Amino acid sequence: MSTAEETDGENTPWSEVTPEAARRLLVAAVEAFAERGYHATTTRDIAGRAGMSPAALYIHYKTKEELLHRISRIGHDRALLLLETAADRDGTAAERLAGAVQAFVRWHAERHTTARVVQYELEALSDEHRAEIVELRRKSDAAVRRIISEGVRTGEFDVPDVPGTTLAVLSLCIDVARWFNAQGSRTPDEVGTLYADLVLRMVGPRK
Amino acid sequence: MSTAEETDGENTPWSEVTPEAARRLLVAAVEAFAERGYHATTTRDIAGRAGMSPAALYIHYKTKEELLHRISRIGHDRALLLLETAADRDGTAAERLAGAVQAFVRWHAERHTTARVVQYELEALSDEHRAEIVELRRKSDAAVRRIISEGVRTGEFDVPDVPGTTLAVLSLCIDVARWFNAQGSRTPDEVGTLYADLVLRMVGPRK
Repeated sequence: MSTAEETDGENTPWSEVTPEAARRLLVAAVEAFAERGYHATTTRDIAGRAGMSPAALYIHYKTKEELLHRISRIGHDRALLLLETAADRDGTAAERLAGAVQAFVRWHAERHTTARVVQYELEALSDEHRAEIVELRRKSDAAVRRIISEGVRTGEFDVPDVPGTTLAVLSLCIDVARWFNAQGSRTPDEVGTLYADLVLRMVGPRK
Repeated sequence: MSTAEETDGENTPWSEVTPEAARRLLVAAVEAFAERGYHATTTRDIAGRAGMSPAALYIHYKTKEELLHRISRIGHDRALLLLETAADRDGTAAERLAGAVQAFVRWHAERHTTARVVQYELEALSDEHRAEIVELRRKSDAAVRRIISEGVRTGEFDVPDVPGTTLAVLSLCIDVARWFNAQGSRTPDEVGTLYADLVLRMVGPRK
């Protein structure tokens, strides 16, 4: 099975965005924001990258912030789905935590350009949109904390600081988007496997 | 002892930058780059923040890239010094690794605005400057890898993938700059202590 086929239905990124012109603009916005930053990008730049006129852009998106919000919302929805799916699965806490880390790392590696925009441009969202995204992040955090807490309760895990360890686990996975290089020596799945092992060590009983 | 006093001689950030006007411009550049991104910031913005004219800025810095390079160089020199100092200390590998993580985390927490610029704007450096910074990062990586390798050799640590684990340890610490909030519930030292414990678990013998 190819890496692309293992990405939980992400074979066609942004497939939820229709019509095709709106999707093309979104992809152009992700690339422009990742390359130059949100504030240095104009709607004219984005339209140009998509081979469209500024007027055509305004049919689909009223403002640059609307594009960022759409990107951030889709990215955070995907992240939350991956983590809640892993948390809700059958299996031991260790199996579920390993699955959550593997899926979360794989997303941040394969979609590192999108993930950088999603993770680094939160401040550029409007207050209302930022509040909505923060709520999704809170739920992602809760999904991982739930797995770790259950592992502590059953005695599988030994974790003195559950909120701090949850934060560290998510942070470790998120930072993959910063350093991951598709031309590098490790595939997204290899990084996911390594990280799942490291995270299980972080929460495991001490020798 | 206050947190500021515990920062390994960083009581006066940018004290290596003289004269005072050059330092003021550098501080203004860090703030502007962190807030709006490198590409969205003009030298005029930076001069304005420092209460100076664009002409006065050019006396000290020929280009915006020169400011970014100076910030990046000072930040990377500091990071390397912290890690090599920890690696060169007496003590067990566990003690030295814990010290390295504590110091590296503390820097990324206390100086999170600077650290974000240092970590996220590498692509904006000129090729020559980027090569110089990449070499400093290679040395930082080598300092941590050395501690982990020594711990493996003495049997203190059990680490199947030393380069991958080194990468993960540094990545975990670096991402503190993204999420750390000075108004949050954890101090830089508390995060450092938590992370040192988590990293020792990552490299420790399995039960």
